[in-house]
Amino acid sequence: MPFDDGRRRVVIREVEPEIDAGRYAIKRTTGESVAVKAAIFADGHDLVRGVLRYRHESETDWHEVVLDSLGQDEWQASFVVAQLGRYLYTVQGWVDHYDTWCRDMRKRIEADQDLSVDLLVGAKLVREAAARASGSDAQHLAEAAAAMASDRSFTARALVALEPALVELVQKYPDRARQTSYDRELAVVVDRPKARYSTWYELFPRSCASEPGRHGTLQDCIRRLPYVAAMGFDVLYLPPIHPIGAAFRKGKNNAPAAEPDDTGSPWAIGSEAGGHKAIHPQLGTFDDFQALVEAAKSHGIEIALDVAIQCSPDHPYVTQHPEWFRARPDGTIQYAENPPKKYQDIYPVDFETAHWRELWEELKSIFTFWIGHGVRIFRVDNPHTKPLGFWEWAIAEIKRDDPDVIFLAEAFTRPQVMYELAKRGFTQSYTYFSWRNTSYELTKYFTELTHSPVCETYRANLWPNTPDILTEYLQNGGRPAFMARLILAATLGASYGIYGPAFELCENRAREPGSEEYLNSEKYQIVHWHWERGDSLSELIARVNAIRRDNPALQTDGDRQFHETTNDQLLCFSKQAGDNLILVVVNVDPYHTHSGWVDVPAARRESEPDKPYQVHDLLSGARYLWHGDRNYVELNPQLVPAHIFRVRRWVRSEREFEYFL
Amino acid sequence: MPFDDGRRRVVIREVEPEIDAGRYAIKRTTGESVAVKAAIFADGHDLVRGVLRYRHESETDWHEVVLDSLGQDEWQASFVVAQLGRYLYTVQGWVDHYDTWCRDMRKRIEADQDLSVDLLVGAKLVREAAARASGSDAQHLAEAAAAMASDRSFTARALVALEPALVELVQKYPDRARQTSYDRELAVVVDRPKARYSTWYELFPRSCASEPGRHGTLQDCIRRLPYVAAMGFDVLYLPPIHPIGAAFRKGKNNAPAAEPDDTGSPWAIGSEAGGHKAIHPQLGTFDDFQALVEAAKSHGIEIALDVAIQCSPDHPYVTQHPEWFRARPDGTIQYAENPPKKYQDIYPVDFETAHWRELWEELKSIFTFWIGHGVRIFRVDNPHTKPLGFWEWAIAEIKRDDPDVIFLAEAFTRPQVMYELAKRGFTQSYTYFSWRNTSYELTKYFTELTHSPVCETYRANLWPNTPDILTEYLQNGGRPAFMARLILAATLGASYGIYGPAFELCENRAREPGSEEYLNSEKYQIVHWHWERGDSLSELIARVNAIRRDNPALQTDGDRQFHETTNDQLLCFSKQAGDNLILVVVNVDPYHTHSGWVDVPAARRESEPDKPYQVHDLLSGARYLWHGDRNYVELNPQLVPAHIFRVRRWVRSEREFEYFL
Repeated sequence: MPFDDGRRRVVIREVEPEIDAGRYAIKRTTGESVAVKAAIFADGHDLVRGVLRYRHESETDWHEVVLDSLGQDEWQASFVVAQLGRYLYTVQGWVDHYDTWCRDMRKRIEADQDLSVDLLVGAKLVREAAARASGSDAQHLAEAAAAMASDRSFTARALVALEPALVELVQKYPDRARQTSYDRELAVVVDRPKARYSTWYELFPRSCASEPGRHGTLQDCIRRLPYVAAMGFDVLYLPPIHPIGAAFRKGKNNAPAAEPDDTGSPWAIGSEAGGHKAIHPQLGTFDDFQALVEAAKSHGIEIALDVAIQCSPDHPYVTQHPEWFRARPDGTIQYAENPPKKYQDIYPVDFETAHWRELWEELKSIFTFWIGHGVRIFRVDNPHTKPLGFWEWAIAEIKRDDPDVIFLAEAFTRPQVMYELAKRGFTQSYTYFSWRNTSYELTKYFTELTHSPVCETYRANLWPNTPDILTEYLQNGGRPAFMARLILAATLGASYGIYGPAFELCENRAREPGSEEYLNSEKYQIVHWHWERGDSLSELIARVNAIRRDNPALQTDGDRQFHETTNDQLLCFSKQAGDNLILVVVNVDPYHTHSGWVDVPAARRESEPDKPYQVHDLLSGARYLWHGDRNYVELNPQLVPAHIFRVRRWVRSEREFEYFL
Repeated sequence: MPFDDGRRRVVIREVEPEIDAGRYAIKRTTGESVAVKAAIFADGHDLVRGVLRYRHESETDWHEVVLDSLGQDEWQASFVVAQLGRYLYTVQGWVDHYDTWCRDMRKRIEADQDLSVDLLVGAKLVREAAARASGSDAQHLAEAAAAMASDRSFTARALVALEPALVELVQKYPDRARQTSYDRELAVVVDRPKARYSTWYELFPRSCASEPGRHGTLQDCIRRLPYVAAMGFDVLYLPPIHPIGAAFRKGKNNAPAAEPDDTGSPWAIGSEAGGHKAIHPQLGTFDDFQALVEAAKSHGIEIALDVAIQCSPDHPYVTQHPEWFRARPDGTIQYAENPPKKYQDIYPVDFETAHWRELWEELKSIFTFWIGHGVRIFRVDNPHTKPLGFWEWAIAEIKRDDPDVIFLAEAFTRPQVMYELAKRGFTQSYTYFSWRNTSYELTKYFTELTHSPVCETYRANLWPNTPDILTEYLQNGGRPAFMARLILAATLGASYGIYGPAFELCENRAREPGSEEYLNSEKYQIVHWHWERGDSLSELIARVNAIRRDNPALQTDGDRQFHETTNDQLLCFSKQAGDNLILVVVNVDPYHTHSGWVDVPAARRESEPDKPYQVHDLLSGARYLWHGDRNYVELNPQLVPAHIFRVRRWVRSEREFEYFL
């Protein structure tokens, strides 16, 4: 028989959360909880009990939490993850004979039946519990068992048996000899809170010089930190800072040939000055980099580096490790291609090389090198064009030593691949947000992201623009469009970022009609920005980021809900954390004022349906008294195209004093 | 590194159907197909291909079917199960470099690029395919490779490369050295068609005597076969035919004490005349049983036996194997209980006995004993009160030798447990149909049963009544209620059954108000039925069963769809198999005539929206010409409370002749 013990009668199914049959871990940040559900049942009418078991990978013993019944064989319990790293969790269940006996006993008493033999059955169960217990518990149990089997009246003996303290004591020593363990141990990867809540600013250091014409440096970048900090960003992400290749260098606006003074693309990594572990000489030295990391830290900002696994033809790897590149039949090396487009300034590494083991180790060492220089956040360029198995291995290896490292996946590809990258270990992910403009599109997409299984592994980081993405919406919608997209990104997403100062200066000139490329893109040239221009959105951004900082509801995506409105151009949603409830209404049409009614169900407000509640617009400071589920809003995109309301609930205190929470 | 080969770039996910991460098999009957879907993708932009692999458990080699792309990384293929037993299926996928090369080549040609090196790359891929091929294929491939690498014009060489016959030939010899196999092999249990489509009649042999007062016999039962066959049933299910215990025997109407002439319940199994492997002496001998099995067969009927794992106190097991029963502290054996109810005439076996292995073997041998006597169908009494692991083991063991055996689970308990019994191996299952009366209830419940994962393992067998279940609906609704429930059971379910002749004689007297027990139930006494009563529903039943036999759509539940009606009392649904489309409309109110409009979407009819179609009422023979999606019906429950329409589509033949299919 294939059974070790056919007497294991309990069945455990439908354990959630569980991703792809336990193949992948779910994600949490320290302090968050994992709510676990399971179906637990046995044959017949006996009662079952169960526990949720969990442990940090560094622990050997399991912690146990008793599961609560939700009815219909569903059970639930939760645990809080306090430590970085990986936790494991699983479920066990068993038939509880004493619980069953007590239930039946009450029915027998009700029916006034003879209890003589049944009391002896119960006494035996309590005696067995006594044998599993020790100390005073064992003694109490033994005494109770003796009393139940004594010659006292049925009533007296039944009272002993059903006494809540005794029932609890018996439950403390259950007979788990024939318990069932769930088939699998499931994992949670626990990150630091910034994995969940982060505010990114992307900037090209070479454009940071205060005077036009000069190549900016890391020191110039340090001088920009107060500007970035004033807007409330906590991650400063730099495009690649490595030496740039000269071979096939692209000119301004991606011209096929560079002029002598053209700077080249930072993503054409590597020259005789070094590769992924070097700093572009014109940007500065490792001392400068160290200074930048420390100065940023003093402003509450972390430096995030870009890791783009690709090489310029001048990269040292090309000569030192030709076996990591694909040779063409004519003896040349295969450059990057997306036929008919050719990128001769870039060599992809060949993950199908027979020397993949050495290649993987070297690529991993790029991350550990920069970790050694104080970097804890990486934005990974096009991870979807590298094998998924590589990322799973590299991220796990790196996080084993440094569980606080954050990896942002810059993949814009099919949903399956984007979600798979998150499952394989990426901490955060770029999204389709940039191209979701209408209420319908935003509601549909973010509803998908809010629900299981996606929400368990995929943490969205929302970018209204990037150096590669100047959307049609921004190109045409002008300043109102930039305001709307900023507020949407910052409130829909607990993590978001902008590419600046192009964003706050509302830079919207495309290279040509129909293109999402910037005219005179910083990818190919130094740009001298007028950082302090009077029409900059920097103050709005600072205000929005301050609102994020003050409102825990905006620091999580777990509880995002969309609400009905009577006008398609008004998007309404809310987020909640504890008693912090934020309601956002955005006019997504940058051209016209829109008005309408928005629905905020009483259940969401947790308020008495007939009582007023206050909505406090954290952008304008205005406070409105609202009644009922449906209220009126009007938004002029030329002013501010959104409300970010804190909903203050009506509360009656113990002393009959009414106020808004 | 935990990878055997990091160059396996393909990922396979979301393989369907898959039950509980492959823990359980899905079910099919011979001749049915298994449609398998999977998400298959790789990093980057390379094209992938894949195969569905399957084999019967008796085969060692896999069959392969090429997967078709559904877009968005979804793939699909199917295979037909021809043999009884178990099949395994899984999926493999790989990067197809030649497919990818061809796609890129077309773009390069389009852009009028230099092709010299790329043609050499392609030639190498074809040369590699040649090395994997043999015979003339190898030669063709080698020649093509040579042509592609020749000094002829780009155009000539590209034409060779992209020639469909060559592309197909290269695909015939793919490079699968670094393919990915799906993590799991999944199973299908293949039953005979009767597992899917069966028509059951339950009857107490002891009530089959032609004259009142006499205990009926198996020979009387043989004489009843023409009656059963005339109604179109193909399974005759007998309650237990074993010796009945005398100890604590229940009297008529479940009276606590029996009168001397009371016959006892057939479910109180076992006396000094024997147990589960004996026949009640008053019913006859093994020769009689053999004669019954053979006579039934000649009428196209199979005998199904009831297996109730429980014993009367007089069962030989009780004295031979006291270790299989639970002893009470007073030395007595634990009788069946559902406190405060006591069933002292029945001892449950104790599945928590230390001797569970011997117990399991003996219980299994009950089935194999009767299989040896020609029985291939078992109705299992209360399987949910026996461990699920026991059923999984016993059914698998029995079906390994006799894969044509059918097990019907008589479990009325919580959904989790009912579905789990099906997953563990039960071929068919009783349902909640008996208590689903309104359109809303029926639509909701049968929609759940029609969809994955339930439909993959749980085959419903619908019973409007049983000896234990005389529903309130039948008690109060009279003859119209019996007609409606008969038609619902027979058309909603490819398998259904009735307990007769109580059903066809519209027996609706309950033991007492509020009870679902029959008055003077056959469970406790012999009943003399007036089989041939003029108001019997036997003719309607015969008609309905003939309609089932003639219409493949009613022999499967796979494609059951519910349709909107304008009247809540009119339930409308359809089933389809090939070009056989059956539309059923039932008035579920047994008291009043109802009329309204029913919606039959054009997509379901597969007809041109503006063309008429014919609905042919197979019950009355009437034919109606309907137009559009919405048509009028009116049903008087006193006449026949339903239409069973065959929908005949309007067809224009090649010769411009219009007719109904």
